[in-house]
Amino acid sequence: MLTTDNIYADVDKWLSEIDYGQAPKNLYDPIRYSMSLGGKRMRPVLCLSTCALFKDDYEQAKWAAMAIEVFHNFTLLHDDVMDKACIRRGKPTVVAKYGLNTAILSGDAMLIEAYRLLQLTDSPSFSLIVDTFNKTAREVCEGQQLDMDFETRNDVTAEEYLEMIRLKTAVLLAGAIKIGALVGGAAAQETQALYDYGILIGLAFQLQDDLLDSFGDPATFGKAIGGDIMENKKTYMLISALSKADSSQRREMQNWMSNPDPVREEKVEAMRRLFEATGARAATEDKVKELYDEAMSKLREMEIPAEGKRYFIDYADKLFKRNK
Amino acid sequence: MLTTDNIYADVDKWLSEIDYGQAPKNLYDPIRYSMSLGGKRMRPVLCLSTCALFKDDYEQAKWAAMAIEVFHNFTLLHDDVMDKACIRRGKPTVVAKYGLNTAILSGDAMLIEAYRLLQLTDSPSFSLIVDTFNKTAREVCEGQQLDMDFETRNDVTAEEYLEMIRLKTAVLLAGAIKIGALVGGAAAQETQALYDYGILIGLAFQLQDDLLDSFGDPATFGKAIGGDIMENKKTYMLISALSKADSSQRREMQNWMSNPDPVREEKVEAMRRLFEATGARAATEDKVKELYDEAMSKLREMEIPAEGKRYFIDYADKLFKRNK
Repeated sequence: MLTTDNIYADVDKWLSEIDYGQAPKNLYDPIRYSMSLGGKRMRPVLCLSTCALFKDDYEQAKWAAMAIEVFHNFTLLHDDVMDKACIRRGKPTVVAKYGLNTAILSGDAMLIEAYRLLQLTDSPSFSLIVDTFNKTAREVCEGQQLDMDFETRNDVTAEEYLEMIRLKTAVLLAGAIKIGALVGGAAAQETQALYDYGILIGLAFQLQDDLLDSFGDPATFGKAIGGDIMENKKTYMLISALSKADSSQRREMQNWMSNPDPVREEKVEAMRRLFEATGARAATEDKVKELYDEAMSKLREMEIPAEGKRYFIDYADKLFKRNK
Repeated sequence: MLTTDNIYADVDKWLSEIDYGQAPKNLYDPIRYSMSLGGKRMRPVLCLSTCALFKDDYEQAKWAAMAIEVFHNFTLLHDDVMDKACIRRGKPTVVAKYGLNTAILSGDAMLIEAYRLLQLTDSPSFSLIVDTFNKTAREVCEGQQLDMDFETRNDVTAEEYLEMIRLKTAVLLAGAIKIGALVGGAAAQETQALYDYGILIGLAFQLQDDLLDSFGDPATFGKAIGGDIMENKKTYMLISALSKADSSQRREMQNWMSNPDPVREEKVEAMRRLFEATGARAATEDKVKELYDEAMSKLREMEIPAEGKRYFIDYADKLFKRNK
């Protein structure tokens, strides 16, 4: 019986067996460090489990799954450089530990390594798999650029925010699932439906993460609560709050957002209160539920074995329960 | 008759037809800008002309040649970020024009684009071609890391310097030639001999470039003369100078190198004089000649048509005459 735990154990073992390289140490040590920071390994697990829906074993998707995880960690590494982030999963980021230039270059080498791993995939759909990987990788860059563009804009809409997180976060989850389906030999229609499921779950996951950034438990979240609030990040929740606020609430929010040197605890507390009072927290929770339900209905419509559907439903449930 | 000018015109046309993408503008404009900075397009020209040695036309190597040129420009873009360089080919670098984060991310997207282009190659040797590309890309990163490592070391040897420039510069020229040979269907022995030629020419080219950095004509060099001297860069020439110097010359060099705020013209003039006086300039010129001669003898030994050999001999001559 297919379980996420089995697959997770294989992912961990396979990742630990990748030979990134030895010399120069200053190039390869940061890659090993970056990969050792852990995480839920969601993308390779989804890639492999999707493959297993259509084939007896998922070994054939091994290299693509590894490529996707290395690519994902490359994006985290370079994003941390761009965001000047110091902490990732409770530990120093690569840029904080090794410096700017090493972080840039090690990230470049990781992207090259991701393509080397992908190349090892043996599948009749190889060319489609690489196309999917390339398109996804390109879209992730587009998402990161939109995220940076939004920092200096005050008129970002909820739709634009959702499009940004679709590109920055959802396409890689959906791409991992799609590549698993392609290796597994799924029909075009199922492959597309699974991709759509991945996008919806990815969007829901990111909105849930945004909720946690403001309202999560500091003990389990892995970084400081209120990061988005302190950066005035134009999240779905902030955009909702600004649009739902009455004039005094809007003034209060704008005061906090334009304060160049607020006391962290005070600003975070005030904005959290405003997210609640305006109904923006509830609106974000509703949007998560709406996306989640839509993802579930995509699954139900699909012509795949009941066991497979069950697996994806359980996976999504686990993902969201764990983070609540 | 195969000429570099014909091929150069095709390279230019093909490069101009690549659709890098439109939105977000802040991601794709810097890529177009980077590619528009020009240059000699040595790598794609070498790739295509090598292919033409073994086949009637070189169209089949088009995408690999494009991939190599986009990859090369990606490395220049990220190197400029790491070196905080402001000028490249007489124009502002991407990082100077667009800022740090955009330069990092646009570079990432260029690397992904290089792989997308490579993927379009239609050849029975596809898998070997991608292996060569991956290995080369990885080695270029290793070379860049060694270059950065050497900045903080005072005991770099001439052999270590040559190994660094082999990785940072020569392998990409040699890789371009090898990929051209693979697409052309060359036998393994010829492919290897052409690769070796590429390494030797690449090393000679970089040492020649180092000579120009100190002794070139400011009007044609494209950046300010003396950059390496100002950074105390441990080039073959500086390493030779330190090893050949008498005690008073060594003291003078060390004084200039440890001066935290020297007058540029004075330091450059003094170090140039010392490179001449110690015989380091002549030693570097001798090394260029030695590598060049070795490259030529590699060519002579090869079992390829005389026209092909002639082409590579002329190409190398042109390359070196142009820069003298």
